[in-house]
Amino acid sequence: MRSLPDTANRLIDEFSRLPGIGKKTAQRLAFHIMKSKEDSANRLSEALIDVKTKVRRCSVCAGITEDDPCSICTDPKRDETMLCIVEEAPDIYAFERTNSFNGKYHVLGGVLSPLDGIGPDDLNFKSLMKRLQEGMEIVIATNPTVEGETTSLYLAKILSDLNVKVTRLARGLPVGGNLEYTDEATLIRAMEGRTLI
Amino acid sequence: MRSLPDTANRLIDEFSRLPGIGKKTAQRLAFHIMKSKEDSANRLSEALIDVKTKVRRCSVCAGITEDDPCSICTDPKRDETMLCIVEEAPDIYAFERTNSFNGKYHVLGGVLSPLDGIGPDDLNFKSLMKRLQEGMEIVIATNPTVEGETTSLYLAKILSDLNVKVTRLARGLPVGGNLEYTDEATLIRAMEGRTLI
Repeated sequence: MRSLPDTANRLIDEFSRLPGIGKKTAQRLAFHIMKSKEDSANRLSEALIDVKTKVRRCSVCAGITEDDPCSICTDPKRDETMLCIVEEAPDIYAFERTNSFNGKYHVLGGVLSPLDGIGPDDLNFKSLMKRLQEGMEIVIATNPTVEGETTSLYLAKILSDLNVKVTRLARGLPVGGNLEYTDEATLIRAMEGRTLI
Repeated sequence: MRSLPDTANRLIDEFSRLPGIGKKTAQRLAFHIMKSKEDSANRLSEALIDVKTKVRRCSVCAGITEDDPCSICTDPKRDETMLCIVEEAPDIYAFERTNSFNGKYHVLGGVLSPLDGIGPDDLNFKSLMKRLQEGMEIVIATNPTVEGETTSLYLAKILSDLNVKVTRLARGLPVGGNLEYTDEATLIRAMEGRTLI
């Protein structure tokens, strides 16, 4: 049995380290690269280096940015009194695509997860505390998972002594969803959170 | 609405050019790269450049290799009288993993597909003709798709005048398959190709 050339195997290994890319997909990607024109591999290679050299964490919100502080943190049109707390930087762009929020963001950099050894000191709580001002609204936008809910409860607790309004995203039926296929936990939240028409 | 930094968008674009990688997956990969340690991005970047500079086509079989001719073509233990014709280089390694074939290979580099403007001159038929010797067995191992079958028929036709034995891979039930869920075309092939126990 012959195996692939070493360089090809190394590329397959590197691709399969990426999240959601298994061995088969990594092989398919590597063969695509080998078959494609040289400059497409070069462009991907350069984009990888560029992103690691130019993109950094914003020192204020911990979002990703090329300039520090980031363009959201420095935008004077943004509402200073609204702060949306998200788990990871991509979550910021999920909201930005909707144009439904004009405040600022704060990235925790993860969620509390005692089983994985992630405690309050591993997340950006300290930098959050520095940003709080009286009368602010803090929108907790962690994911509706066990860890996200735990983090949300922890946040609500440490913020309760301060003079800030703490809110969280509504849980309920996703738009376009189907009652029949909705899980019980979501249905319970939808019923509890019912609103007047 | 704020969008991502330019370098991040460029990396997402480059990822989404890869086959089977959509916009969402490309975003996930890019955020993974941005979050991961610098050397993992560097390693992937180097592997991409390496594969494009070191890996080339074998001048005999058109498989992928670092040394030309490739290790299969130069292996004296390989049966010179058996030639397996495959569509693409990855197909070689599909057979090599099974240890079921000890002959040599020839990569066509695609399939005949008049709708896509791919005719006989676009595939490696000329180099195939040069490799043929009297008494050889040619195993046609194109995919069991419409284009693969067309290419197989074309090959059988141009090889019919020469003193070579032309065979093709068996079509039938895949191992571990289920009669109930097998498509009609496969069932017909399985019945036609039934063998004595």
